[in-house]
Amino acid sequence: MEENEHTIFVGSKPFMNYVTGVVMQFTTQNADQVVVKARGKFISKAVDIAEVASKRFLEGQVEIGKIATSSEEFKNKEGRQVRVSTIELNMLKK
Amino acid sequence: MEENEHTIFVGSKPFMNYVTGVVMQFTTQNADQVVVKARGKFISKAVDIAEVASKRFLEGQVEIGKIATSSEEFKNKEGRQVRVSTIELNMLKK
Repeated sequence: MEENEHTIFVGSKPFMNYVTGVVMQFTTQNADQVVVKARGKFISKAVDIAEVASKRFLEGQVEIGKIATSSEEFKNKEGRQVRVSTIELNMLKK
Repeated sequence: MEENEHTIFVGSKPFMNYVTGVVMQFTTQNADQVVVKARGKFISKAVDIAEVASKRFLEGQVEIGKIATSSEEFKNKEGRQVRVSTIELNMLKK
């Protein structure tokens, strides 16, 4: 698996940009697996993107496989210890 | 598994209410498994709650197991078809 080629990092761009990104990886790039990753407040958006891509645009062709969460602790600008959660949704060709 | 007894639905209450709820289920209620569920924008918060409960408050005792997402399509007040994502995070005693 060439992970870097088929990873989508979800951020503040418009929702449909990411959905299109996922769909394009599976269709024009012929990926077997696409990993959708996000941190913090973008986690909900990443789940929406994976759901819409797999249930609406690639229905019957792609499914959400393993989902993993993690978190990183670090010091913020004010020197406070904060924890940020992350998610990885593995999307697989059926 | 008595699912209803050990399910936490994440909504708009303060973050720590839910973390305490998860921790209490494992400690005073002696649960082997707690399922953290959320919909839409509360998904990020649910992941944060599961991460903080397992990595900070119940470190070494509880881990996040299977995570599943889904989505439901329905008509909103304006009659438009909308899709709302859901998540279930299974937290397990080690």
